[in-house]
Amino acid sequence: MDILKERIRKDGKNLGGGILKVDSFINHQVDPLLMDACGAEFARRFADLGATRVLTAEISGIAPALATAMHMNLPVVYARKSKPITMPDQVYLTVAPSHTKGRMVELIVSPEFLAKGERVLIIDDFLASGATILGLWRLARAAGAEVVGIGALIEKSFEGGREALRSLGLPVESLVCIASMDDGKILFCD
Amino acid sequence: MDILKERIRKDGKNLGGGILKVDSFINHQVDPLLMDACGAEFARRFADLGATRVLTAEISGIAPALATAMHMNLPVVYARKSKPITMPDQVYLTVAPSHTKGRMVELIVSPEFLAKGERVLIIDDFLASGATILGLWRLARAAGAEVVGIGALIEKSFEGGREALRSLGLPVESLVCIASMDDGKILFCD
Repeated sequence: MDILKERIRKDGKNLGGGILKVDSFINHQVDPLLMDACGAEFARRFADLGATRVLTAEISGIAPALATAMHMNLPVVYARKSKPITMPDQVYLTVAPSHTKGRMVELIVSPEFLAKGERVLIIDDFLASGATILGLWRLARAAGAEVVGIGALIEKSFEGGREALRSLGLPVESLVCIASMDDGKILFCD
Repeated sequence: MDILKERIRKDGKNLGGGILKVDSFINHQVDPLLMDACGAEFARRFADLGATRVLTAEISGIAPALATAMHMNLPVVYARKSKPITMPDQVYLTVAPSHTKGRMVELIVSPEFLAKGERVLIIDDFLASGATILGLWRLARAAGAEVVGIGALIEKSFEGGREALRSLGLPVESLVCIASMDDGKILFCD
């Protein structure tokens, strides 16, 4: 997706260690028109899956997932990383390693909003190792829901996430793919 | 705003202790069309303030702030509650009591995205005691920015937030106002 790629080229920063700083347009600060365009593109790519719900993880998944949900007119559920007092005692919970936090984080969804029969589209900001997305997949499966597709704004192909998700047999779409971040550069896949 | 009020009447739950559970349409699960309508309404009410940026606090402020920013075509910045590794060492930081967490939380904004000369519109999900919004106001002022307006989806007038914000001399808009949650009821202001 050209406008996202151009924005990464212009404003993305390679901080080393595989960390891509995109907090001027995706997380911390969000460009709403760019995010809206990304949501429209996900809606186009996943239009034929019969999805009934969009699922993401707080915090930085919320903006792309909401933008996608707006274009598909589907409810969006974001997995919480700590259980708010408004959530019932019985929840779906899994743990996944956080790349940027350097530790395991919990992903929690209330059974009120994820149930058998749902067709779930998972949307997140990054596809890196795939660990967060696999965590969301486990939550959906625990609820008896079916995951029908996976979308990420930015794939870092050198972290192996696509291979980690391959056995799920699902469509995996990224809007921009980065092949390498060695030597302070950002090399795109194509 | 009638559609939000009707939704609270239908799906909001009074959990006691002043806690309103709205996680089937505002936080945890988000109704994207409702949120879009709320964003459009904020954009209408704040159209004449010359705002240059929308500011909110993660996590549940992100959806209403993004929806508003989409309608105003303004960048949205969400204050982080923990400092990600992509953020510079020097930040604006304040602390505010969290109603739902029962403890103080940090609110952190990078100086990259909040600066002198900016005209900031603060948007959040709830106006309760006003503590989070006052925290965001302090961050904006620390950056030398001017806050030009404050909007919340739901005001709980019995928690005194509007009085706490009065001395700022700013327009404060809530889309729905709740006057009382005594005896398991939800009584609206009008």
